[in-house]
Amino acid sequence: MDTRMIDGVILTPLRQIQHPQGDVFHGMKKSDAGFAGFGEAYFSTVRKGDIKAWKKHLSMTLNIIVPTGEIRFVLFDDRPVSPTKGATNEFTLSPDNYYRLTVPPQVWMAFQGLGDDNRLLNIASMEHVPDEMERLPLTAIPYCWS
Amino acid sequence: MDTRMIDGVILTPLRQIQHPQGDVFHGMKKSDAGFAGFGEAYFSTVRKGDIKAWKKHLSMTLNIIVPTGEIRFVLFDDRPVSPTKGATNEFTLSPDNYYRLTVPPQVWMAFQGLGDDNRLLNIASMEHVPDEMERLPLTAIPYCWS
Repeated sequence: MDTRMIDGVILTPLRQIQHPQGDVFHGMKKSDAGFAGFGEAYFSTVRKGDIKAWKKHLSMTLNIIVPTGEIRFVLFDDRPVSPTKGATNEFTLSPDNYYRLTVPPQVWMAFQGLGDDNRLLNIASMEHVPDEMERLPLTAIPYCWS
Repeated sequence: MDTRMIDGVILTPLRQIQHPQGDVFHGMKKSDAGFAGFGEAYFSTVRKGDIKAWKKHLSMTLNIIVPTGEIRFVLFDDRPVSPTKGATNEFTLSPDNYYRLTVPPQVWMAFQGLGDDNRLLNIASMEHVPDEMERLPLTAIPYCWS
Protein backbone atom coordinates (compact mmCIF):
# COMPACT_ATOMS: atom_id res chain seq x y z
CA MET A 1 0.00 0.00 0.00
CA ASP A 2 1.20 3.49 -0.89
CA THR A 3 1.35 5.30 2.46
CA ARG A 4 3.11 8.50 1.41
CA MET A 5 1.66 11.53 3.22
CA ILE A 6 -1.05 12.81 0.91
CA ASP A 7 -0.21 16.16 -0.66
CA GLY A 8 -2.01 18.92 1.25
CA VAL A 9 -2.76 16.81 4.33
CA ILE A 10 -1.32 18.30 7.53
CA LEU A 11 -1.11 16.68 10.95
CA THR A 12 -0.49 19.34 13.59
CA PRO A 13 0.21 18.57 17.25
CA LEU A 14 -2.00 20.64 19.54
CA ARG A 15 -1.26 21.85 23.05
CA GLN A 16 -3.20 20.70 26.08
CA ILE A 17 -2.55 23.26 28.78
CA GLN A 18 -3.07 21.88 32.27
CA HIS A 19 -4.53 24.23 34.85
CA PRO A 20 -5.65 23.40 38.40
CA GLN A 21 -9.12 24.84 37.78
CA GLY A 22 -9.58 23.28 34.35
CA ASP A 23 -7.57 22.67 31.24
CA VAL A 24 -7.41 24.44 27.89
CA PHE A 25 -7.17 22.39 24.71
CA HIS A 26 -6.07 24.24 21.62
CA GLY A 27 -8.10 23.83 18.45
CA MET A 28 -7.23 26.19 15.64
CA LYS A 29 -5.96 29.71 15.17
CA LYS A 30 -6.37 31.67 12.00
CA SER A 31 -2.57 31.95 11.79
CA ASP A 32 -2.12 28.16 11.89
CA ALA A 33 -0.93 26.11 8.95
CA GLY A 34 -3.91 24.55 7.25
CA PHE A 35 -6.32 27.36 7.99
CA ALA A 36 -8.22 28.03 4.77
CA GLY A 37 -10.88 30.42 6.06
CA PHE A 38 -13.75 29.94 8.46
CA GLY A 39 -17.10 28.85 7.15
CA GLU A 40 -18.62 26.67 9.84
CA ALA A 41 -17.77 24.71 12.97
CA TYR A 42 -19.81 21.64 13.90
CA PHE A 43 -19.56 18.45 15.90
CA SER A 44 -20.14 15.02 14.45
CA THR A 45 -20.45 11.78 16.39
CA VAL A 46 -19.78 8.21 15.34
CA ARG A 47 -20.67 5.09 17.27
CA LYS A 48 -18.11 2.50 18.33
CA GLY A 49 -17.33 0.24 15.40
CA ASP A 50 -19.40 2.22 12.89
CA ILE A 51 -17.69 3.46 9.75
CA LYS A 52 -18.80 6.58 7.94
CA ALA A 53 -17.54 6.13 4.40
CA TRP A 54 -16.63 7.54 1.84
CA LYS A 55 -17.04 11.26 1.44
CA LYS A 56 -15.19 13.72 -0.74
CA HIS A 57 -15.66 17.47 -0.47
CA LEU A 58 -15.19 19.30 -3.74
CA SER A 59 -14.26 22.73 -2.34
CA MET A 60 -14.12 22.48 1.47
CA THR A 61 -10.95 22.18 3.51
CA LEU A 62 -11.57 20.25 6.74
CA ASN A 63 -9.77 20.85 10.00
CA ILE A 64 -10.63 18.03 12.37
CA ILE A 65 -10.04 17.65 16.11
CA VAL A 66 -11.19 14.82 18.36
CA PRO A 67 -11.87 16.20 21.85
CA THR A 68 -13.79 13.11 23.03
CA GLY A 69 -13.29 9.42 22.29
CA GLU A 70 -11.08 7.93 19.60
CA ILE A 71 -11.65 8.03 15.85
CA ARG A 72 -9.72 6.44 13.01
CA PHE A 73 -9.56 8.48 9.81
CA VAL A 74 -8.61 6.97 6.48
CA LEU A 75 -7.82 9.21 3.52
CA PHE A 76 -7.42 8.22 -0.09
CA ASP A 77 -6.00 10.39 -2.85
CA ASP A 78 -7.28 9.79 -6.37
CA ARG A 79 -6.79 13.37 -7.63
CA PRO A 80 -5.59 13.07 -11.21
CA VAL A 81 -2.80 15.63 -10.93
CA SER A 82 -1.73 14.96 -7.34
CA PRO A 83 1.93 14.00 -6.72
CA THR A 84 0.61 11.45 -4.23
CA LYS A 85 -2.14 9.98 -6.40
CA GLY A 86 -2.95 6.49 -5.14
CA ALA A 87 -1.74 7.09 -1.57
CA THR A 88 -3.73 6.01 1.50
CA ASN A 89 -3.20 7.57 4.94
CA GLU A 90 -4.52 6.47 8.31
CA PHE A 91 -4.63 8.65 11.43
CA THR A 92 -6.13 7.80 14.81
CA LEU A 93 -6.99 10.88 16.84
CA SER A 94 -8.10 11.21 20.47
CA PRO A 95 -7.45 13.47 23.48
CA ASP A 96 -4.46 11.21 24.19
CA ASN A 97 -3.17 11.58 20.64
CA TYR A 98 -4.18 15.19 20.25
CA TYR A 99 -3.56 16.48 16.75
CA ARG A 100 -5.47 18.53 14.21
CA LEU A 101 -5.96 16.83 10.86
CA THR A 102 -6.18 19.12 7.83
CA VAL A 103 -7.83 17.50 4.81
CA PRO A 104 -7.72 19.42 1.53
CA PRO A 105 -10.62 19.36 -0.93
CA GLN A 106 -10.97 16.46 -3.39
CA VAL A 107 -9.47 13.84 -1.04
CA TRP A 108 -11.65 10.88 -0.01
CA MET A 109 -12.22 10.38 3.70
CA ALA A 110 -13.81 7.69 5.83
CA PHE A 111 -13.77 7.38 9.60
CA GLN A 112 -14.54 4.81 12.26
CA GLY A 113 -15.48 5.16 15.92
CA LEU A 114 -13.07 3.31 18.19
CA GLY A 115 -14.05 4.61 21.65
CA ASP A 116 -17.32 4.49 23.54
CA ASP A 117 -18.27 8.15 22.95
CA ASN A 118 -16.64 9.57 19.83
CA ARG A 119 -16.94 13.14 18.75
CA LEU A 120 -15.08 15.25 16.21
CA LEU A 121 -15.05 18.98 15.73
CA ASN A 122 -14.69 20.12 12.14
CA ILE A 123 -13.65 23.69 11.52
CA ALA A 124 -14.68 23.86 7.89
CA SER A 125 -13.49 26.47 5.43
CA MET A 126 -17.00 27.01 4.06
CA GLU A 127 -20.57 26.54 5.14
CA HIS A 128 -22.33 23.31 4.27
CA VAL A 129 -24.02 23.46 0.88
CA PRO A 130 -25.81 20.61 -0.90
CA ASP A 131 -23.98 18.96 -3.81
CA GLU A 132 -20.57 20.06 -2.57
CA MET A 133 -19.87 16.48 -1.49
CA GLU A 134 -19.60 13.19 -3.32
CA ARG A 135 -20.09 9.77 -1.74
CA LEU A 136 -18.95 6.24 -2.42
CA PRO A 137 -19.93 3.00 -0.68
CA LEU A 138 -17.51 1.47 1.83
CA THR A 139 -16.20 -1.23 -0.50
CA ALA A 140 -15.55 1.12 -3.43
CA ILE A 141 -12.14 2.06 -2.05
CA PRO A 142 -10.08 -0.89 -0.80
CA TYR A 143 -8.98 -0.69 2.82
CA CYS A 144 -8.64 -3.36 5.49
CA TRP A 145 -10.81 -1.97 8.29
CA SER A 146 -10.33 -5.05 10.53
CA MET B 1 -31.42 42.14 40.55
CA ASP B 2 -31.48 43.71 37.10
CA THR B 3 -31.90 40.74 34.75
CA ARG B 4 -32.51 42.57 31.49
CA MET B 5 -30.79 40.81 28.58
CA ILE B 6 -27.40 42.49 28.33
CA ASP B 7 -26.98 44.59 25.20
CA GLY B 8 -25.02 42.60 22.61
CA VAL B 9 -25.53 39.22 24.26
CA ILE B 10 -27.21 36.68 21.98
CA LEU B 11 -28.56 33.26 22.90
CA THR B 12 -29.05 31.19 19.76
CA PRO B 13 -30.72 27.75 19.73
CA LEU B 14 -28.61 25.23 17.83
CA ARG B 15 -29.76 22.18 15.90
CA GLN B 16 -28.89 18.65 16.90
CA ILE B 17 -29.44 16.50 13.83
CA GLN B 18 -30.08 12.85 14.68
CA HIS B 19 -28.67 10.27 12.31
CA PRO B 20 -28.58 6.47 12.73
CA GLN B 21 -24.82 6.37 12.19
CA GLY B 22 -24.02 9.36 14.39
CA ASP B 23 -25.41 12.80 15.07
CA VAL B 24 -24.38 16.26 13.92
CA PHE B 25 -24.45 19.14 16.38
CA HIS B 26 -24.33 22.60 14.90
CA GLY B 27 -21.81 25.08 16.28
CA MET B 28 -21.41 28.27 14.32
CA LYS B 29 -21.61 29.44 10.72
CA LYS B 30 -20.03 32.60 9.48
CA SER B 31 -23.48 33.81 8.40
CA ASP B 32 -24.90 33.40 11.94
CA ALA B 33 -25.91 36.31 14.14
CA GLY B 34 -23.11 36.99 16.59
CA PHE B 35 -20.28 35.99 14.28
CA ALA B 36 -17.62 38.67 14.60
CA GLY B 37 -14.79 37.04 12.68
CA PHE B 38 -12.74 33.93 13.36
CA GLY B 39 -9.56 34.22 15.38
CA GLU B 40 -9.28 31.00 17.34
CA ALA B 41 -11.28 28.00 18.49
CA TYR B 42 -10.35 26.23 21.72
CA PHE B 43 -11.82 24.01 24.39
CA SER B 44 -11.83 24.88 28.06
CA THR B 45 -12.79 22.56 30.91
CA VAL B 46 -14.09 23.34 34.38
CA ARG B 47 -14.46 20.91 37.23
CA LYS B 48 -17.74 20.23 38.98
CA GLY B 49 -18.41 22.99 41.48
CA ASP B 50 -15.41 25.10 40.45
CA ILE B 51 -16.03 28.69 39.42
CA LYS B 52 -13.79 30.51 36.97
CA ALA B 53 -14.32 34.18 37.76
CA TRP B 54 -14.27 37.02 36.64
CA LYS B 55 -12.83 37.71 33.21
CA LYS B 56 -13.50 40.56 30.82
CA HIS B 57 -12.15 40.62 27.28
CA LEU B 58 -11.42 44.06 25.97
CA SER B 59 -11.72 43.35 22.24
CA MET B 60 -12.75 39.72 21.80
CA THR B 61 -16.27 38.53 21.05
CA LEU B 62 -16.88 35.05 22.49
CA ASN B 63 -19.14 32.44 20.95
CA ILE B 64 -19.56 29.62 23.44
CA ILE B 65 -21.03 26.15 23.04
CA VAL B 66 -21.17 23.36 25.64
CA PRO B 67 -20.95 20.01 23.85
CA THR B 68 -20.17 18.03 27.03
CA GLY B 69 -21.42 18.44 30.60
CA GLU B 70 -23.29 21.42 32.01
CA ILE B 71 -21.91 24.90 32.67
CA ARG B 72 -23.51 27.92 34.28
CA PHE B 73 -22.43 31.27 32.83
CA VAL B 74 -22.97 34.54 34.63
CA LEU B 75 -22.50 37.84 32.80
CA PHE B 76 -22.35 41.31 34.30
CA ASP B 77 -22.51 44.56 32.38
CA ASP B 78 -20.68 47.55 33.82
CA ARG B 79 -19.96 49.27 30.51
CA PRO B 80 -20.37 52.99 31.13
CA VAL B 81 -22.42 53.71 28.03
CA SER B 82 -24.40 50.48 27.83
CA PRO B 83 -28.21 50.71 27.85
CA THR B 84 -28.16 47.68 30.16
CA LYS B 85 -25.46 48.89 32.55
CA GLY B 86 -25.89 47.08 35.86
CA ALA B 87 -27.65 44.04 34.41
CA THR B 88 -26.72 40.47 35.34
CA ASN B 89 -27.57 37.47 33.15
CA GLU B 90 -27.35 33.77 33.92
CA PHE B 91 -27.39 30.99 31.31
CA THR B 92 -26.93 27.27 31.88
CA LEU B 93 -25.80 25.44 28.75
CA SER B 94 -25.45 21.72 28.07
CA PRO B 95 -26.15 19.25 25.24
CA ASP B 96 -29.72 19.07 26.64
CA ASN B 97 -30.06 22.86 26.58
CA TYR B 98 -28.10 23.37 23.42
CA TYR B 99 -27.58 27.03 22.65
CA ARG B 100 -24.71 29.23 21.52
CA LEU B 101 -23.95 32.13 23.84
CA THR B 102 -22.49 35.24 22.20
CA VAL B 103 -20.68 37.54 24.63
CA PRO B 104 -19.58 40.94 23.34
CA PRO B 105 -16.31 42.57 24.44
CA GLN B 106 -16.18 44.49 27.73
CA VAL B 107 -18.77 42.32 29.51
CA TRP B 108 -17.68 40.46 32.66
CA MET B 109 -18.09 36.67 32.62
CA ALA B 110 -17.75 33.92 35.18
CA PHE B 111 -18.70 30.28 34.83
CA GLN B 112 -19.19 27.24 37.02
CA GLY B 113 -19.03 23.52 36.26
CA LEU B 114 -22.26 21.73 37.11
CA GLY B 115 -21.79 18.32 35.50
CA ASP B 116 -19.13 15.66 36.00
CA ASP B 117 -17.19 16.40 32.80
CA ASN B 118 -17.70 19.98 31.61
CA ARG B 119 -16.27 21.35 28.43
CA LEU B 120 -16.93 24.48 26.44
CA LEU B 121 -15.91 25.38 22.92
CA ASN B 122 -15.17 29.05 22.36
CA ILE B 123 -15.10 30.31 18.81
CA ALA B 124 -13.28 33.56 19.49
CA SER B 125 -13.21 36.52 17.15
CA MET B 126 -9.46 37.01 17.64
CA GLU B 127 -6.44 35.00 18.69
CA HIS B 128 -5.43 35.00 22.32
CA VAL B 129 -3.05 37.87 23.13
CA PRO B 130 -1.69 38.79 26.56
CA ASP B 131 -3.20 41.85 28.23
CA GLU B 132 -6.39 41.67 26.22
CA MET B 133 -8.22 40.40 29.32
CA GLU B 134 -8.89 41.86 32.74
CA ARG B 135 -9.64 39.82 35.86
CA LEU B 136 -11.46 40.37 39.12
CA PRO B 137 -11.74 38.07 42.13
CA LEU B 138 -14.96 36.11 42.64
CA THR B 139 -16.36 38.36 45.35
CA ALA B 140 -15.73 41.60 43.46
CA ILE B 141 -19.02 41.26 41.58
CA PRO B 142 -21.97 40.25 43.74
CA TYR B 143 -23.76 37.09 42.70
CA CYS B 144 -25.34 34.29 44.72
CA TRP B 145 -23.53 31.22 43.40
CA SER B 146 -25.27 28.82 45.83
